[in-house]
Amino acid sequence: MCDENGLTYEEPSKIVRKSKATVGSKHKVVEELSHVLDVKAQPRAAEDGAGPHRFTLKTPKGTRDYGPSQMAIRADVLNKIISVFKRHGAETIDTPIFELKEVLTGKYGEDSKLIYDLADQGGEILSLRYDLTVPFARYLAMNKISNIKRYHIAKVYRRDNPAMMRGRYREFYQCDFDIAGHYDPMIPDVECIRVVSEILTSLQLGDFLIKVNHRQLLDGIFEACGVPSDKFRTVCSSVDKLDKSPWEEVRNEMVNEKGLSPEVADQIGEYVCLSGKIELVERLLQEEMLVGMSRSAHDGLEAMKLFLKYCALYGLQDQVSFDLSLARGLDYYTGVIYEAVLLNDTKTEQGETGGVGSIAGGGRYDNLVGMFDPKHKNVPCVGVSIGVERVFSVLEARLLNSRAKVRTTEVEVFVASAQKNLLEHRMQLCKELWDANIKAEHSYKRNPKLLAQLQYCEDMGIPLAAILGESELARGIVKLRKVVTRQEIEVERENVAQAVRDLLTETNEQR
Amino acid sequence: MCDENGLTYEEPSKIVRKSKATVGSKHKVVEELSHVLDVKAQPRAAEDGAGPHRFTLKTPKGTRDYGPSQMAIRADVLNKIISVFKRHGAETIDTPIFELKEVLTGKYGEDSKLIYDLADQGGEILSLRYDLTVPFARYLAMNKISNIKRYHIAKVYRRDNPAMMRGRYREFYQCDFDIAGHYDPMIPDVECIRVVSEILTSLQLGDFLIKVNHRQLLDGIFEACGVPSDKFRTVCSSVDKLDKSPWEEVRNEMVNEKGLSPEVADQIGEYVCLSGKIELVERLLQEEMLVGMSRSAHDGLEAMKLFLKYCALYGLQDQVSFDLSLARGLDYYTGVIYEAVLLNDTKTEQGETGGVGSIAGGGRYDNLVGMFDPKHKNVPCVGVSIGVERVFSVLEARLLNSRAKVRTTEVEVFVASAQKNLLEHRMQLCKELWDANIKAEHSYKRNPKLLAQLQYCEDMGIPLAAILGESELARGIVKLRKVVTRQEIEVERENVAQAVRDLLTETNEQR
Repeated sequence: MCDENGLTYEEPSKIVRKSKATVGSKHKVVEELSHVLDVKAQPRAAEDGAGPHRFTLKTPKGTRDYGPSQMAIRADVLNKIISVFKRHGAETIDTPIFELKEVLTGKYGEDSKLIYDLADQGGEILSLRYDLTVPFARYLAMNKISNIKRYHIAKVYRRDNPAMMRGRYREFYQCDFDIAGHYDPMIPDVECIRVVSEILTSLQLGDFLIKVNHRQLLDGIFEACGVPSDKFRTVCSSVDKLDKSPWEEVRNEMVNEKGLSPEVADQIGEYVCLSGKIELVERLLQEEMLVGMSRSAHDGLEAMKLFLKYCALYGLQDQVSFDLSLARGLDYYTGVIYEAVLLNDTKTEQGETGGVGSIAGGGRYDNLVGMFDPKHKNVPCVGVSIGVERVFSVLEARLLNSRAKVRTTEVEVFVASAQKNLLEHRMQLCKELWDANIKAEHSYKRNPKLLAQLQYCEDMGIPLAAILGESELARGIVKLRKVVTRQEIEVERENVAQAVRDLLTETNEQR
Repeated sequence: MCDENGLTYEEPSKIVRKSKATVGSKHKVVEELSHVLDVKAQPRAAEDGAGPHRFTLKTPKGTRDYGPSQMAIRADVLNKIISVFKRHGAETIDTPIFELKEVLTGKYGEDSKLIYDLADQGGEILSLRYDLTVPFARYLAMNKISNIKRYHIAKVYRRDNPAMMRGRYREFYQCDFDIAGHYDPMIPDVECIRVVSEILTSLQLGDFLIKVNHRQLLDGIFEACGVPSDKFRTVCSSVDKLDKSPWEEVRNEMVNEKGLSPEVADQIGEYVCLSGKIELVERLLQEEMLVGMSRSAHDGLEAMKLFLKYCALYGLQDQVSFDLSLARGLDYYTGVIYEAVLLNDTKTEQGETGGVGSIAGGGRYDNLVGMFDPKHKNVPCVGVSIGVERVFSVLEARLLNSRAKVRTTEVEVFVASAQKNLLEHRMQLCKELWDANIKAEHSYKRNPKLLAQLQYCEDMGIPLAAILGESELARGIVKLRKVVTRQEIEVERENVAQAVRDLLTETNEQR
């Protein structure tokens, strides 16, 4: 079982490189580097082990734990994304992490080899989900749901060769927004683009471009150029490589591997290098060579025309580019397809730009639900998947470069003691603060040092400290300290909760 | 492979009942009923299938999809719980859904047979996580983390015999809060109880009681009663059954299965029927028969005394009961143990109360992390697991009984059209509303009927409708309709966003 670079999906030590002309030396270096880094990324190997625990203390290959800072970044990103989904009235659903194996069979073509199977322990044969789209289609068919606008954010699993330093894992999040239902042309389709645009704007990832194309138009171009219809899908997957490979390479594949004549390939090449705005659609609609030869090309172009008109109504004209080289890998698309790319791609720690900066993609798939329905009743769908793992790596890298610190808790006030034997006073005050819905904590040590407590506040970014001291308590007073400015005020013991609240409001307003 | 009721873990059709005296006929009926209901709960069996899709269209055994209403209830519950965790300054982490099989080996005793294994597809041998505690311990050991206060809400997997109508699934959420670190006695322990109390109060599940006990005290009782130390754990698991079985049955098990003499069993019985407040601790500390015979009993009682004193400082005295029958099933507890039960248990749809209403539980486990550390370095931990699935079923049942409707979206205004050919006007207005961060949607049909649009608003609980009409647009006007009261006002076309915002504020204030 090999991926396109000729690497097996076994353990690193067993990786065997097949001699294949297409494996460039740059690829090789990157793979090897990422392998070394992957191993380094796994803390605490077995060498220092002794006794009964002889196994390596690690997470499974291609997976990782998310620590508090990573979780804080993730929560922030996902909250922004979910806000956009909610602004568009989407509901959310969840499905089991595994499906009957048969549900996934025949949906992913060659990539089926990447599916994780569960062991046969008696009972049903199960596999981990590979994406969220197939379970969504199964959900619609099983529950006879004919229309829904839903988002689904969850982990999926692929036994891919992990390249973890490039943010590619075997367990990763997908974040999908889909609109299912029989509706009028392009109205839900364009809302998907609008959702992508709002999300990318809200995440402040820099300038982006949303490339759009139409599967019917691609088929029409192939038809007009004289490609036999049984080769449409395979030629389409060659075109799909244009974002990573030059035309010359793609042309070679079409001619030498897919069996097209050089003339047909060159004709295709003239179309797929085109990109532009609605004017390009208008111009192509005049090309008798194309629309006269193929009904499909004509329909695809008319669809793009409507789509781009709606884009303008949603304020998306500057962000959207009609790009005839966009093909999308998956077989199941039947209409409009799109892909968002970042234009000023933030480099990762390793200085890689991580390819072309694709950050979201999707399209219309009208026939997938029918594959699950016993009577093949279809529910037309259109949707988009936000590349959240990509977003996470970009933001993590940015944060690392800025050396800024993420807060991993939301504690508003730390209850500290200036002398020994004040534990019970601290506990009592914490109780009052929690009762007043104020986020508070104190040391779990009986007699912590004041300096250690204040240092903790600074490390954790806690804005306020309430400092209990014997003499102050005797006077019925507590000191409230602003951690950043070290400014202190005295408040009455009974009024600490209210005083904390006032100070927090004041601090928030000053920001 | 059989569970304690003598049921195999195979497919329903293969379920074989072993003749075992302890399998009561009531159990049998419940199991069979739940099996029938489980099958009914799986929509669209294969009978109506034809063509290539001959498999049953279902989710795997013991799992289910969560639709929008269920997800809305879940989000609401989890948000309330997370608020409490954050109020106490907890961070969050996540770990992979699967672990190296060796990580889970030897942690769950007999229940290990319930672990889901992944197929061996070359490479590592993996299993789905069975709980969140073992991965947490692995995370601490692997990353050499010596102190953290974290929560973790995620799905876990058990190949248990599902009883879905009683809310027991093979895939279900766990929701854990744990404090790890070398701290002074009982300070983190009592905060866990405080967290449980705040959560149960915030969820408004009715009155509850938190039973507490101490493993050292239980061991001390066994010691003082003359149980050999190698039988402490097995006798402890007999005591654990007291919440479901009468003393007579537990006594029988101790004598006939565990080999205790009747006198020893009776002596244990005198202790484990006790429950009370701090006075009970004081009384037992005077019992020479107990504290004189067992150092462990003395230490356990002193620990409980401190614990209950701290409980009072956190305002928990009325909610906590010192209960000597509480034993907790898991082997790894080493100190305080606790379990929260609902007192006025809401019945489920089927009229079952779902056992004794246990809704949260946990305790101190000081030796688990050391099992992963190559040098057996320990990190003491104490934590609690909130039975969120139980909470979900209670709330779902309550909602079903009240016939109230959950909103599954947060749409604030629906943009409707009163006549044909206003699609582009609707799109333009939606764009403006989205730009103003207002949650808005419109029909995906070109020319929807006004009545259908207004009906949709009522069905979905959308508070406002912006109705576009030709004559109004000609006058530069849009009608804003309050969906519940059907009251309409006219606003200027340019000011729709602001007017919507004002109306929403007004409506919220009236609530």
